[in-house]
Formats: sequence, C-alpha cells, structure tokens
Amino acid sequence: MVDIAIRRVAEPKVVPAADELSFGKLFTDHMFVMDYQTEKGWYDPRIVPCEEFAMHPSAMVLHYGQAIFDGLKAFQTSAEDKDIVLFRPNDYLNRFNRSARIMSIPEMDVAVVKQGLFELIELDKRWVPGKLGTSLYIRPFVVATDPYLGVKVSDTFKMFIILSPVGAYYAKGFNPVNIKVEDKYIRTVRDCLGEAKTPANYAASLKAQIVAKEEGFDQVLWLDAVERKYVEEVGTMNILFKIKGEVITPPLAGSILDGITRRTVIQLVKDWGVPVTERPIAIDEVFAAHDAGELEEIFGSGTAAVISPVGELSWKGRKIVINNNETGELAQKLFDHVTGIQYGTVPDKFGWVEKVAKL
Amino acid sequence: MVDIAIRRVAEPKVVPAADELSFGKLFTDHMFVMDYQTEKGWYDPRIVPCEEFAMHPSAMVLHYGQAIFDGLKAFQTSAEDKDIVLFRPNDYLNRFNRSARIMSIPEMDVAVVKQGLFELIELDKRWVPGKLGTSLYIRPFVVATDPYLGVKVSDTFKMFIILSPVGAYYAKGFNPVNIKVEDKYIRTVRDCLGEAKTPANYAASLKAQIVAKEEGFDQVLWLDAVERKYVEEVGTMNILFKIKGEVITPPLAGSILDGITRRTVIQLVKDWGVPVTERPIAIDEVFAAHDAGELEEIFGSGTAAVISPVGELSWKGRKIVINNNETGELAQKLFDHVTGIQYGTVPDKFGWVEKVAKL
Repeated sequence: MVDIAIRRVAEPKVVPAADELSFGKLFTDHMFVMDYQTEKGWYDPRIVPCEEFAMHPSAMVLHYGQAIFDGLKAFQTSAEDKDIVLFRPNDYLNRFNRSARIMSIPEMDVAVVKQGLFELIELDKRWVPGKLGTSLYIRPFVVATDPYLGVKVSDTFKMFIILSPVGAYYAKGFNPVNIKVEDKYIRTVRDCLGEAKTPANYAASLKAQIVAKEEGFDQVLWLDAVERKYVEEVGTMNILFKIKGEVITPPLAGSILDGITRRTVIQLVKDWGVPVTERPIAIDEVFAAHDAGELEEIFGSGTAAVISPVGELSWKGRKIVINNNETGELAQKLFDHVTGIQYGTVPDKFGWVEKVAKL
Repeated sequence: MVDIAIRRVAEPKVVPAADELSFGKLFTDHMFVMDYQTEKGWYDPRIVPCEEFAMHPSAMVLHYGQAIFDGLKAFQTSAEDKDIVLFRPNDYLNRFNRSARIMSIPEMDVAVVKQGLFELIELDKRWVPGKLGTSLYIRPFVVATDPYLGVKVSDTFKMFIILSPVGAYYAKGFNPVNIKVEDKYIRTVRDCLGEAKTPANYAASLKAQIVAKEEGFDQVLWLDAVERKYVEEVGTMNILFKIKGEVITPPLAGSILDGITRRTVIQLVKDWGVPVTERPIAIDEVFAAHDAGELEEIFGSGTAAVISPVGELSWKGRKIVINNNETGELAQKLFDHVTGIQYGTVPDKFGWVEKVAKL
C-alpha cells in the first residue's frame, strides 16, 4: 500500500439520472494521477479534481503519439447490499502494462494503479449508476510529456485514471449491426502497433469509419494488410463466427487486440462444450459458409457492448444477412451470462469479479 | 488579410547564443493559435505567449491520436541586409493541409496560416539565429480537443505554430550515418497513414529506433510491410541511392512521406542533367549494386539535416560500406546548393525562398 494524497473538489457535481447517461461525455468529480521521470520512476500517485491540466504545446504526445490507454468497467450489483464490483481488473491492468511495453512506456506497478483505482471509486462511488446495463467506464491512460520536438522516447510521462458513468448500450434490446468489410483502408499490420491500445490504431481507423457511416454501415471489419483476405477485428471489438456449430475467431498474431471480452467469451464457450478455434479465417470462407447454409452467427465482443450481434455483412458490394438479421442463440446466451456475472445475478465461476466498495 | 490579435509576453526571454543551440528544446516568446468548432469553422487566429495551455484529460488527441503536424525552417540570410526568409512555405503548408485531409481534420486557409506565421516571425525575429547552419524551426500542428471518449472525428480542434531556434546539424562537417535495414518492425503500410505527418507514424517508429540505437546504429531504414523487401524511408528522412550514375528513390505510393526536401533534391538533380527515377527499389538490389561496384552513394533528405550521407548500411547482419564511409560528391553538392539557396548565397532559380522580415 502506498500513500495516495487526496485533494477533493470544492463543489461536487450533480450526478445525472441513470437513464440520462450516454457514453464517455460526462466525468466524475475526481481523477487519479501519477507522474514519471526517468530518474525517479513513477511517483506522486494522487487523487485530484477531474479538470483541465496544463500541458506545454511541445509535449511529445501531441507530436509523436507516445501514449497508451485501456478501458474497463465497474458495476453496481443487483444484490440488495449494492456492491460495486470490477470485472477482471487485473487482466485489464496487465494488458495496460503490455501496451506500455509495446509503446516503450515505463511499466507501472499494477498494485499501485489498482489501489489508486479502488480509492478513486470509493471516493466517487455515488457516480456508479444503478440501472441494469449502465456502468462506470474507467479509462486509465498514459501520455508522454517531454517538451521536446525530437523523435525519441520521452523522459517524462503522466498517467491518469478518469471515470465516466455510461448508459445502457442496449437500452431497447439488441440491435444487430450492419458491417462493411473494409477493402480499401488498412488499420495496421503485423509487427506494428496493432496489439497495443494506443492512439495510433484509432487514428488509423477514422477515415474508413467515416466512409462506412456515409454508406449506411455501423462499423467496418478490417482485413489483414498483407494478403487483404484474412479477417482481423471490428472497429472497437473482436469478431467471432459460428459456423457449423464451431466458434472461429482470428488468432492473436500481432495485429489485433487481445480483447478481455474475447478471452471471456472463449473461456465460457469452451466451458459450455462448444468447440472454439482461434485460427486465420478468410473473408471468402465466411461468405462461402453463408452460401452453404453453414454460417449460423457472427458477433463482436468488446468492453463497451459486451456482445454485438452482426446482422448484415457487406463485402465489395455483396451483402449477406446473418441469422435473419436477428440475435443468435449463442450471442444472446453469452450476453446474458457475462452481464449476469457483472451484475451479480449469475455465479462467478471463474473469479472474474472483484468487489471495490459498498454503496 | 485577417485580424490577428496579439498578446505579448510580459517578460521576453533571453535569446541564447547561436552556438549554444541544439534541436527542439527551446521555444521563442510567442506562438500562433487558432480554434475550430464544427459550427464555426476555424476562428480566432491570434498570437499569444508560448506557454502551457489547458487541456481536458479526455481530449481526443490523447486517446485517439487525431492530430497532424509539419516542420519547416526560417533562415537569416548571409547578405548584409540580414533578411529572414522561409524555404518553400507554400509547399509545407499545402502538405500540412494534405495531412489534415488524410486525418479527417478540417483544412485550414493557407493564406491565414501563412499570415499568422509571418506576423509571428516578425514579432519573434530576434530569435532567428544568425550563424551558418542554424535556423528557426517552425512547427505547425493541430490536435483534436473534444472532451469525449468515443472513437469519432472530433468537433473541436486547436491549431498551433510554435518556433524553436535550432543549432547547426553538422557543426563539425558531415558525419555519414550508420543505418540498419529494419527486418522485424514495420512503420506503416500502404492505404494506412504513411503519407501523413501524423503522430501515429512516429509512435510506430519508436521501438525499432531504440533497438537500433542499442545495436550501435544511428537510424533505421524501413522496408515495405507487404513483401518486406522494398525500401521505404529512414526515420525522419526520405532515402536516395546513386547507382551507376542514376539517382533512384522509392515512389510516393502511399506509405512514405512526400518530403519537400525530396522534391527539392529531385528537381535540382534533374536540372543538373543527372537521371532520376522514382521506382520501387528492393533492398537486395541495393546490396547487389554494392557487390557489383555500382553503388556510388546513398543519402537521406529531410528538413532537419537537408542531406544526410549514409556511410554504412546493415541488413540481416551483413554490413556494406558506401563510398568509403565518406560523403559522396552528389550529396555534398546538393547540401551546398540547397543551404546556399536558403542562406542567400546561391541564386534561387526555382523561387523557393520567400522573404518574411528584415532584422
């Protein structure tokens, strides 16, 4: 345990009603901050009001993008005693450090970050919304702050955790998404930054996303950069296919994110006796499976939506409809099960949930 | 002409001596700033003290990297009347807008940015160093500022121009660099962001750069992401080869930067009657040319160094020495000619130089 100084806001904000929440626009009263200097290591972990901070215009993150982030959630359980729990916090924080290694950012002590997160949530717990489907989104991130215009690894960094109460992703029930297989733009390539949660990968996704939206699609499915045929991932989700009773998902081969929800899904599905294979899957294999009547479901997995069924998939002008544009049985079961664990209504067989505070 | 409000520093800083300057660590008294909102367009161009600014921790640039920059230089001419000139400012500012388009950032009115730059330099002209080889480095950049955690194009941006007096790159004469052909890491891929000056590309270069430095190399030469054989560019420079009297450089095919110094070199070399070809060049072709005694010179071109001769090139453990590890004739001639134009001692045949101010 380290000492974490707390400076409270002078005037706490009004917490909005749970059904007025959207995603990522509203922040709680406080944030966790920690600094890094090469000579000192990470130092001065503290909780301060969540507000603007001062940055030099030459700060390296603004020019050379040395930065990482992650995203996890806290939930208010449905139990009468109203616990606040985190879902797989160690896995998210270890992934955060893995992104740090890829981006040449000094690793953090997970115990310190976790302690900071727990104290921050305890302090701001009135912000954790109580309605089913809502949650407190947690965004840890690190940015390079050297005021220097040369291209190099920064000697100073700033680490933050900010909190945002978010509304139910599926307020009106599942809405299967309409996805475009991207055949022009590329998100990343193997041996580049694809495995890291770093701004670069999201910057690279913007143009394709704009074009797809204009064409009426919800999101894009990326193909690999080299052969332009193997499926990679969707905007902010990993992707899974159910073909002839088997779940198939692209392997962690260096260009896709190692999704914690992807891991959760794979473990659950295996536990249920459904065969799961992580292997390269070509987009024409998906279309061929559809034509043969063997493509049963497609769904995405991610922290924001948990499970997102894919209703339509378009590639080079050809559109296929999956499972009648309805949520498949497995997608529904996974969503119910994972959210059930998160809200405390389904037994937490794998020990994924950690209690943070009591309301 | 627009109205550009000026707020001056209370206490101007002391300008360091020209021989105490390095690169990108020191900034002048003022900076140019402009804001953008979707409803208003770019507005409020102004000159203010160059100092820290306030940013919300959820500002989109810190999370999703929507940002661009460029880099150009102002010089104090060697003439008795001490003009301050810019080298190809329109080309740099048009490229800046091209990066904006690639990154889905709203384009700027080049006339307004240029006016802002001219007024800023006029105000801070005592910072333009006078010694041969020194210059005022100019860094225009744009960052996305929406306080929002969703992945989308920002609705607000901030544009800056900051100025940094820089020392002579070759204070003790040319020092040919020792370059590693990178065969593990990838910088970018065609149809991604490689053509833009955007933080993502520089973030992707850090790891390889660290490893190469540890191995004793100065910089890395990137290979293409798909076939891993075609030469792309060096860290912060384009690359050119002189083989059997012909200059060969990789084409602008989507994954390399359209260097202004590259353009300058190509135009000059053509003007001198030396054949220049922009075409894919495989790394084994370079090594084969060396073995056949036909590889005469390798040099990089970039705004910082102008011309950087390559003395040694290593690929998969094999090292070749180019031109006896000495600066080649063409590299020297190009360096002398380009810097001569910049400092006003060589006639500016192509109209590249623009006068900004008088000292």
